[in-house]
Amino acid sequence: MPKLWNETIEEHRRAVRKTVLDVTGALVAEQGLRGVTMSRIAERTGIGRATLYKYFPDVESILAAWHECQIEGHLEELAAVRDCPGSPGERLTAVLDAYARIQRRRHGHDPEIGAVLHRGQHVAHAEQHLIRFLADLLAEGVEAGEVRADVAPDELAAYCLHALSAAGGLPSEAAVRRLVRVTVDGLRPSQSV
Amino acid sequence: MPKLWNETIEEHRRAVRKTVLDVTGALVAEQGLRGVTMSRIAERTGIGRATLYKYFPDVESILAAWHECQIEGHLEELAAVRDCPGSPGERLTAVLDAYARIQRRRHGHDPEIGAVLHRGQHVAHAEQHLIRFLADLLAEGVEAGEVRADVAPDELAAYCLHALSAAGGLPSEAAVRRLVRVTVDGLRPSQSV
Repeated sequence: MPKLWNETIEEHRRAVRKTVLDVTGALVAEQGLRGVTMSRIAERTGIGRATLYKYFPDVESILAAWHECQIEGHLEELAAVRDCPGSPGERLTAVLDAYARIQRRRHGHDPEIGAVLHRGQHVAHAEQHLIRFLADLLAEGVEAGEVRADVAPDELAAYCLHALSAAGGLPSEAAVRRLVRVTVDGLRPSQSV
Repeated sequence: MPKLWNETIEEHRRAVRKTVLDVTGALVAEQGLRGVTMSRIAERTGIGRATLYKYFPDVESILAAWHECQIEGHLEELAAVRDCPGSPGERLTAVLDAYARIQRRRHGHDPEIGAVLHRGQHVAHAEQHLIRFLADLLAEGVEAGEVRADVAPDELAAYCLHALSAAGGLPSEAAVRRLVRVTVDGLRPSQSV
């Protein structure tokens, strides 16, 4: 019985958190980051302010949780692309292409998001996850002879993430495709000395 | 006569601004961005607070002016490297190498600088300047057949700046050299379809 009771509480907490983060996403989309306040979240969710503060000490922690959730969603999206059929090189290109599109989409949402939230600890953590994810894929590519072996996969992964963040400022899908092509060309086994 | 008088005033203003920005740089180096306050600057420069506020309305505008000044200094540094002898490709590589080192140095200073100051209008302006500077160099490289011609120079310039910003997180000079190599490889005339 106590177990069931705990599970019910846990489920309830998760539901509350999910509601708060959903409303936060809607507020960000409508009004930008600065439009998100504790009172607006309380009003829109119907959760009392006192209860809301039991879940999150301030609006920054809500935004951080929402952002973390977004990044996890992106990682799942990228994992789905990675698991499509193809050679390691093809799958890598598909993942980098998907990542560049996510960057462009995010930037369109609210260009300030990066500057405001990138200071958080959770982003450093999520970026590590992303680097790990890409480095594994790059290591597969190295083994298949499709990716250069003279630079460690985690350094190549950091190069990819930074290079593709340029997608945030690009005006068209075609420009994003060109950026991915250039970035991938930097990963090819080197022909030069 | 009035002209001379105006020149004297102008010179005085420039000297005051320079003193304020020098002290700002020292404070950033010693205590990080958050250590810079109007009172500390007033105290350290010996300029009265009332006078200081005539020059800068708030500490953010001082930090922005200091940062702009830094970026201008970097551009001069890069221009000096660009003007060394060599083929367009060699000079391009030297400039990208110098830029990556600047990124690493800046990041060491205060990793928050980017997040805090990159929102400013002056940075967008300085970045445009940097993109222009690199795009010109890349165009020379295209003409010499040393840089790919299938992507516009300004898109390649944005790729370079973003890719090399990875240098901020790199642990060694050797890793910076590898990053530059990978980035430059992305710029080579494409052999693949």
